[in-house]
Amino acid sequence: MPIAASINIKYHIGNALQSKAMDPLKFVMEAWEAQSMAESAGLTVQELLPTLVSAAQQLARPPISKYRVGAVGLGSSGRIFVGVNLEFPGLPLHHAVHAEQFLLTNLSLNAEAGLRAMAVSAAPCGHCRQFLQEVRGAGDVEIVVSSEAKKEGKALSEFLPNSFGPYELLHEGSPLLLEAHDNALTLTLTEEEEEEEEEEEEESPKQQLKIAALEAANKSHAPYSGSPSGVALLDSDGNVYRGSYVESAAFNPSLGPLQAALVAFVAAASSPQYHRIVEAVLVEKDGAAVKQEDTARLLLNSISPHCQLTTFLSHPL
Amino acid sequence: MPIAASINIKYHIGNALQSKAMDPLKFVMEAWEAQSMAESAGLTVQELLPTLVSAAQQLARPPISKYRVGAVGLGSSGRIFVGVNLEFPGLPLHHAVHAEQFLLTNLSLNAEAGLRAMAVSAAPCGHCRQFLQEVRGAGDVEIVVSSEAKKEGKALSEFLPNSFGPYELLHEGSPLLLEAHDNALTLTLTEEEEEEEEEEEEESPKQQLKIAALEAANKSHAPYSGSPSGVALLDSDGNVYRGSYVESAAFNPSLGPLQAALVAFVAAASSPQYHRIVEAVLVEKDGAAVKQEDTARLLLNSISPHCQLTTFLSHPL
Ligand SMILES: [Zn+2]
Ligand SMILES: [Zn+2]
Repeated sequence: MPIAASINIKYHIGNALQSKAMDPLKFVMEAWEAQSMAESAGLTVQELLPTLVSAAQQLARPPISKYRVGAVGLGSSGRIFVGVNLEFPGLPLHHAVHAEQFLLTNLSLNAEAGLRAMAVSAAPCGHCRQFLQEVRGAGDVEIVVSSEAKKEGKALSEFLPNSFGPYELLHEGSPLLLEAHDNALTLTLTEEEEEEEEEEEEESPKQQLKIAALEAANKSHAPYSGSPSGVALLDSDGNVYRGSYVESAAFNPSLGPLQAALVAFVAAASSPQYHRIVEAVLVEKDGAAVKQEDTARLLLNSISPHCQLTTFLSHPL
Repeated sequence: MPIAASINIKYHIGNALQSKAMDPLKFVMEAWEAQSMAESAGLTVQELLPTLVSAAQQLARPPISKYRVGAVGLGSSGRIFVGVNLEFPGLPLHHAVHAEQFLLTNLSLNAEAGLRAMAVSAAPCGHCRQFLQEVRGAGDVEIVVSSEAKKEGKALSEFLPNSFGPYELLHEGSPLLLEAHDNALTLTLTEEEEEEEEEEEEESPKQQLKIAALEAANKSHAPYSGSPSGVALLDSDGNVYRGSYVESAAFNPSLGPLQAALVAFVAAASSPQYHRIVEAVLVEKDGAAVKQEDTARLLLNSISPHCQLTTFLSHPL
């Protein structure tokens, strides 16, 4: 595609967004929406991805670096997903969520089975190239760096050749990220907690949060340490957001369960200011090799100081 | 080099180590030692690196993964440096130190000006390929994966093509990792602390730790957030170990100051059991965007519960 055409398309898309009174880009776009937007721009859906990157960047929240990263991905169902970077001042930088991690978590939250292609605003960092390995067939995901003159996609295997990944460590049948997980955990309640539970109404927010966090823990991808976990958040509108811990074969790029739940909150809340998170529940495994509680509490205290975090321990069924 | 020759060399080196009553591999080998070991094996010093990897792996401490990684690097002075992976159970996985990060920290602690080549036991993960970008001319560092049949080195630029790194974000004159840093910090003492300081003997362990941690903070590579920090540790033999925070352009792969000090401890202590760390001082910047204190305390409490951590805030001179 010649550069002039590409500029026209961007302008067109820009106008398309403007015509809807500057509606921000949605974090999940249905297949028919993606298809119709692509058609009206004279593009395939995959060609549409790089034209949406700058709108995605507007949704980023990087208060430390001020460096906005946007990632726009095409799922195997034809839906389009958006990812942005999140940074949290006052804490070490490993709390940050990169746009590509946000994107994959967004696919996972929406039960998308696979990622076909992705456009990002800057060359993916090594941490993200590694994190992306958790998806089956990762090497074939096509990546376009929209800031580069050359708009041709390259396979992830060209961005991370000779990779270290799940295949080195897991059995063949072990589910990867975006595949169905059931960690078969159930809550380990103390007698006191059991009594409290009986007294609580079925539909009380706390009870809902506990169930949501347990479900998230059961979907967690933590095959390397065997330490699944999940977080559920309640906002001041009464909505619940959940996130599952995602482990990386290389350990350090793993995404914490609170980070995953914050992705859900940022992607879905009507006004996603962190201080609107009023209650949080973490479910993790009793005696696990990897424990999230203290670290999740540090981040939560920092972004929503009045929010209470309750941890429930679980054990295998 | 034919495979048979390579096996003979390994055997020979194995014997060389055995002949010294199974002395473990040293974390830093002087240039003359490296040269003489290479000569007696009929190799160049660079060819010697892969033959030392399995001895390096023996020094790894991966209680979670049980996956031992060893990295052996050749510095620009001709010295040989060793790196191993460290894992810390009971906490999130971002606390882990990879062998390649250990190696670079080891070079930095020993004021080595550059890394020429490196042999590692497994293909470096994306997180490490990214962390290595902090060294000037990183793309040219030659890497051999010793577990692979093909023993030819490849440049880091081939392991992480189209990289995102310091060059995207820093001024040209900004020092990179392994280059001289002076963050010109001085301690911000309360009146009470100043009085205490006057009362303390010059050479008291606490005073020594404070000075060492400040020096480490002044050498910290933290150009992206402007939040340098340093840690000093005292062990039960009265030895002091220091570590400087190392930031990555990609944020998440950054290495905390406590991790860096633990590298120094593991590399230099005569019996490096973590519970032998009895006192710790952290120096970080007042009002910094990145604060290490709470996270360093979590790790320290976990590996040496009786160790006290004191934090001093600093400000630019
Ligand atoms: Zn990244
Ligand atoms: Zn690594």
